[in-house]
Amino acid sequence: MALSTMIHTHLSTTLYGGAVNRIPAISAHQQVDVDTKLNRGARRLAESLTSLLHLNIEPPSKKNLVYTNRDLFDEDKHNTPTTSPKEMIANKWRQLHGSMDWGSLLDPLHPWLRREIVKYGEFAQATYDAFDFDSFSEYCGSCRYNRNKLFEKLGLCKNGYKVTKYIYAMSSIEMPQWLERSRLMDTWSKDSNWMGYVAVSDDEETQRIGRRDIVVAWRGTVAPSEWYEDFQRNLEPIGIGDAKVEHGFLSIYTSKNESTRGQGEEVSLTVTGHSLGGALALLSAYEAAVNLPGIPVSVISFGAPQVGNSAFRDELDDLGVKTLRVVVKQDLVPRMPGIVFNESLQRFDDITGTLEWVYTHVGAELRLDVSSSPYLKRGFNPMGFHSLETYLNLVDGFHSAESAFRSDARRDVILVNKACDMLVDEPRIPQCWYQLTHKGLVCNEHGRWVKPRREPEDIPSPIGDQAHEHSLRIQMQENHQMLNASCQT
Amino acid sequence: MALSTMIHTHLSTTLYGGAVNRIPAISAHQQVDVDTKLNRGARRLAESLTSLLHLNIEPPSKKNLVYTNRDLFDEDKHNTPTTSPKEMIANKWRQLHGSMDWGSLLDPLHPWLRREIVKYGEFAQATYDAFDFDSFSEYCGSCRYNRNKLFEKLGLCKNGYKVTKYIYAMSSIEMPQWLERSRLMDTWSKDSNWMGYVAVSDDEETQRIGRRDIVVAWRGTVAPSEWYEDFQRNLEPIGIGDAKVEHGFLSIYTSKNESTRGQGEEVSLTVTGHSLGGALALLSAYEAAVNLPGIPVSVISFGAPQVGNSAFRDELDDLGVKTLRVVVKQDLVPRMPGIVFNESLQRFDDITGTLEWVYTHVGAELRLDVSSSPYLKRGFNPMGFHSLETYLNLVDGFHSAESAFRSDARRDVILVNKACDMLVDEPRIPQCWYQLTHKGLVCNEHGRWVKPRREPEDIPSPIGDQAHEHSLRIQMQENHQMLNASCQT
Repeated sequence: MALSTMIHTHLSTTLYGGAVNRIPAISAHQQVDVDTKLNRGARRLAESLTSLLHLNIEPPSKKNLVYTNRDLFDEDKHNTPTTSPKEMIANKWRQLHGSMDWGSLLDPLHPWLRREIVKYGEFAQATYDAFDFDSFSEYCGSCRYNRNKLFEKLGLCKNGYKVTKYIYAMSSIEMPQWLERSRLMDTWSKDSNWMGYVAVSDDEETQRIGRRDIVVAWRGTVAPSEWYEDFQRNLEPIGIGDAKVEHGFLSIYTSKNESTRGQGEEVSLTVTGHSLGGALALLSAYEAAVNLPGIPVSVISFGAPQVGNSAFRDELDDLGVKTLRVVVKQDLVPRMPGIVFNESLQRFDDITGTLEWVYTHVGAELRLDVSSSPYLKRGFNPMGFHSLETYLNLVDGFHSAESAFRSDARRDVILVNKACDMLVDEPRIPQCWYQLTHKGLVCNEHGRWVKPRREPEDIPSPIGDQAHEHSLRIQMQENHQMLNASCQT
Repeated sequence: MALSTMIHTHLSTTLYGGAVNRIPAISAHQQVDVDTKLNRGARRLAESLTSLLHLNIEPPSKKNLVYTNRDLFDEDKHNTPTTSPKEMIANKWRQLHGSMDWGSLLDPLHPWLRREIVKYGEFAQATYDAFDFDSFSEYCGSCRYNRNKLFEKLGLCKNGYKVTKYIYAMSSIEMPQWLERSRLMDTWSKDSNWMGYVAVSDDEETQRIGRRDIVVAWRGTVAPSEWYEDFQRNLEPIGIGDAKVEHGFLSIYTSKNESTRGQGEEVSLTVTGHSLGGALALLSAYEAAVNLPGIPVSVISFGAPQVGNSAFRDELDDLGVKTLRVVVKQDLVPRMPGIVFNESLQRFDDITGTLEWVYTHVGAELRLDVSSSPYLKRGFNPMGFHSLETYLNLVDGFHSAESAFRSDARRDVILVNKACDMLVDEPRIPQCWYQLTHKGLVCNEHGRWVKPRREPEDIPSPIGDQAHEHSLRIQMQENHQMLNASCQT
């Protein structure tokens, strides 16, 4: 019996009652999705989650629908800033970073924290916006820009960080199916993928936020179901206590960084990611905390599935890793049962129907509700609920669980429809609008359409010194050295 | 019983034997299409044509597959011209225009004629490339550029024609469902659509081709099934003899132009169009021939469905209208039974199962075969077979029915994948690549994504003097006057 089947059967009979097999009801929703790949992924996901779908999706709450669309999309708004003025938050950075487990900061959401969450979310979003998805490209699976241009190309220089490192996953070890692969043989790096990046706050931002902040941003996958299949593998012990992590993750995330303590100014590590990237964020935070004792480590994840068991959670607690999970309550991914298991489980091979499944909640949760935003469509839309831009719209508008969407929210709502169809009709924005001109083709002087070569500086080169067996390298050490160097100057 | 059902039942039992109801076999093919609208259209078409599908699609011929893909996509080709040098064809223009019914020019295809066919095909293609499909745009259904910029924007100045008129269809009369409509209320012209344009050869081209050539290019629809539904309406007499045309067409195409004979140089009228546009081309040629006696009128249609009955065909013959139908044998649209009827049919309401259905072939046919091109994918692909760019690739490579694809064909094969997925994998070109940057959105100085207003000169204005009850006006008369004026200078 396949794992997913077992889990579904188990969940549907124990937690949810038993209504399953409603797959046909989903297919109609799938027709709105545009991209084939997204479509396929969403369908597989939706089919896998049928039992959840019909039981957990609540009808949209009407409490906040006090706006008319005309009010929302006044053209004057086109000329307003997209962010509020920056505040000096240096004195409160430890609380904002989770030192008190965000206890009193989440409901109502402290405006300084809101701004920080959006900042990290935009760092995670960058891993999608710059990723080369074209399976015909020889650079498929890479970042389209080199690290010196990334933030400039994506309009993220405003955040005051500088990218210092790109993270690649290599295929020298067993490779999960979710890596984007080029269809070509002579590709930039066979079976390699850009997985994210490391960035460090510049002097001005460091002064504002009270410490030198190292950010690690992990890329998720486009379609959750791509990696869902990978969760149906065996688990293996992570080697520390009773903590176990899912085997698929472990084979990707293995790093042997040694600690080099920073001197002088304070340092923090903030790991972020959406979807699978959020799960990777948790794992890398765990490892960083083990290897870099004394540096405050926190995780800001968006729509991440659950990872690990309760022993893993306890170890994270002991290590002082602070985790803030941003979760949209309609999003299915954070609820996915394939990622949830407890310590009584030795190997999935041994699963029987008598196991008691539990959800292991790690850290604090900021819970958002699609129906709170007047900018978001109602109706079942698994891709839209899971989209990171949907999350960011909801964070930007969130004041408290009981209050309406902030009327003074400034983030551009048009971004919601970048890669899905969640925006209400009124602003007249097409779905999935974030796309390249002619998919990158240009017409040359002879009138022929060609795929231009990349700028030499943008050609990725993950191989070389960094290509070790377990080769996913955050290179915290190097960042630390750079950091120390920059402090001494 | 719906007309389509009757026709399918009838055809499948009389012409094809009776194998129907294989709809599920098609759905797998549909997954490759990207655009939702295309997808829906293609599926409806495919479902409607199931009986044809399984009986008429032959396995790909292997006779011409003598190339390896490596030969085909040599990078040196990127620096070669896309056309052969132009020839002076003035002395042969009447034959090329069909005066001898193209008898000896089609197999093998005369190179001068090939070039002319491609030219008219590109005029027809322009109606797709410049069309605003965005249902959220206030200009949905219009041309994105004004007539003075159209050819420049699309790289068609090379053909030596000048656009003189845009053609609009108005909704003051009953409107078929295939018109693109904006979802908005305050649109540029409610329920109006850009249907094509009139262009006239410039002096240099006129000299080369031996006459002043007036081209009327009609836009087809994106998805054939959009208008397929419209063919399921009643017919009404066109008012001349026994000729009948389909009611949906008649309500669109009604023009009251009077003839003004040209003086001086010779003049020709060439009407072109793809798909529905090809059917409109035939109807407008008919009317032009009635109203402009003495001017040679010819039609070059691509993938057009059959229109009219045998009496209509005879009248076209009597009027001297010459028709060259370019047909890809795998394309389902030219075989669509809904457009085929004969004079024994008074009204579709009266159809019984005893009617003898006939195909009425009008004019000459240039028959192409997808399997003759080494650049085109094998496998069932109804959208790809019907795509005009597929047609143009095949025309460009056609020498004779028995010979292989021309090795010296120069047209850019990358164009094939503009709006479908027919190109072989080797050149590494994504499917459906012809798309705007961010679907036309731009980021303003405040970091907000906005839909820019159109240049004032590009805002369409089909209303005004031209908005009559039957308001689709080619304005042949005005062109004639312009023509005369230009002759006298």
